[in-house]
Amino acid sequence: MGKHVQIGLIQMSCSSDKQANLDKTIGKIREAAAQGAQIICLQELFSSLYFCWEESYDNFSLAETVPGSTTSRFQELARELGVVLISSLFEKRAQGVYHNTAAVIDADGTFLGKYRKHHIPDDPGYYEKFYFAPGDDGYQVFETQFAKVGILICWDQWYPEAARITSLKGAEILFYPTAIGWALSQDEETNRQQYQAWQAVHLGHSVANGVYVVAVNRTGREGAMNFWGGSFVSGPMGDILYQAPHHNEVIHVQELDLSRIDEIRVHWPFLRDRRIDSYKPILRRYIDK
Amino acid sequence: MGKHVQIGLIQMSCSSDKQANLDKTIGKIREAAAQGAQIICLQELFSSLYFCWEESYDNFSLAETVPGSTTSRFQELARELGVVLISSLFEKRAQGVYHNTAAVIDADGTFLGKYRKHHIPDDPGYYEKFYFAPGDDGYQVFETQFAKVGILICWDQWYPEAARITSLKGAEILFYPTAIGWALSQDEETNRQQYQAWQAVHLGHSVANGVYVVAVNRTGREGAMNFWGGSFVSGPMGDILYQAPHHNEVIHVQELDLSRIDEIRVHWPFLRDRRIDSYKPILRRYIDK
Repeated sequence: MGKHVQIGLIQMSCSSDKQANLDKTIGKIREAAAQGAQIICLQELFSSLYFCWEESYDNFSLAETVPGSTTSRFQELARELGVVLISSLFEKRAQGVYHNTAAVIDADGTFLGKYRKHHIPDDPGYYEKFYFAPGDDGYQVFETQFAKVGILICWDQWYPEAARITSLKGAEILFYPTAIGWALSQDEETNRQQYQAWQAVHLGHSVANGVYVVAVNRTGREGAMNFWGGSFVSGPMGDILYQAPHHNEVIHVQELDLSRIDEIRVHWPFLRDRRIDSYKPILRRYIDK
Repeated sequence: MGKHVQIGLIQMSCSSDKQANLDKTIGKIREAAAQGAQIICLQELFSSLYFCWEESYDNFSLAETVPGSTTSRFQELARELGVVLISSLFEKRAQGVYHNTAAVIDADGTFLGKYRKHHIPDDPGYYEKFYFAPGDDGYQVFETQFAKVGILICWDQWYPEAARITSLKGAEILFYPTAIGWALSQDEETNRQQYQAWQAVHLGHSVANGVYVVAVNRTGREGAMNFWGGSFVSGPMGDILYQAPHHNEVIHVQELDLSRIDEIRVHWPFLRDRRIDSYKPILRRYIDK
């Protein structure tokens, strides 16, 4: 019984060699598929170091079109392996217009579409506003062969609005390709608190929307940043079904029972009672009076 | 340094005798004040059993006006003790118009105002739609002598929109008077999962908004329901500062450093990056296409 899907997540470290990162990733995708994964999600900007730690014009040469050479390679791979691929890419949309973009390819190799990150950080170590224009195409859900998936990217994770709208569009699973880490200067207690807060906000999305959440994070040290790995999967009651270690590369395959969403939403009918007549103030930056 | 406030929460069991519940509560308020509490929050519908377990016309006689006799008594008490009181009442607004309402009284006895519960459940054991019209005055923040507090009530807890809007109005602390429990027919694992989901969604509100959350829940068995107590306080990073036991009455006083909100929001500037241009679909019930 139930409607089962096997999702695969790949948590890894990267080098400065784009081709090497791509080859490494493809090897891990093959391994995840061999373990039975049907929908495989990669971490944010898997084909490079997390270059946004600095503001350098040279890094714009890492960008590519979407669809483009990487998605073409992934379309072949998806068709060969019969898997859905969710990949995070530095997209050049036009001269001077770049995005932090996730591409979704179906299990028959079809390019289903892309989501462009809406919430762009600018913090020490994460100078993304220098590189990425905010997405302007809205929140997206993709009907793959195995599940309806919503994609949100890293900093989007802090915004319940993004998780809500994507869920209202029918997502059964919210995938979050992510690159978040601990500055080396931080103490252990701060690190623990930050990881816990990161996980907590995701669990909140699961519970409020009755959806699965899959956060796929980078691991490994890059400069002054220790990417904290700790990728995880939560169920529609915010129950943690899997949690990866912080400092190791991981290929993990997790079975999800999508029929649980229907069951949970019948028993905890939160969507029924939303007061859509009362939410308009959420469109304001701040409510001074 | 910092801006400290002592909040008090009262988790208790109730009887069918309204006067006895009120007297018991007043005793506990005095005790909390003696322990240093400055803002004291009571559980949902503290002056009665959780009568919404059934649909009975007789129960409407429990309702009162707000302000009314209970708030008058609390105004005296607040003035005497120098404490802010947040109380949850069954309000009769007019013939045929009843609300699940929280009243806020300042430490000098001033009646500051009320919030009427927006999200009304209707589930086995919680037939609130029979009694309460949904609040129509919007989300509220009250500037008390000690802190700016937002009040939301029980079922409101599952709605990130409510927590967000109340936070955007300036709330430093979100108080949730609550009455939630385990049906006696449930198994232990279900109970554990439900409590965990309930706490998770609150922690998500703390993190997403950078606010303190104080959930004050009823305890004790009433008919086929075991109210699960487990009141708790979380900090603006979703860190649990206090958690009450499930089956005991509790008077707890917790110090909060309100200056931590400013610090957290500077370091994790989520409010800065909200994409208010992209949230309009949140005003829809569901997004079919």
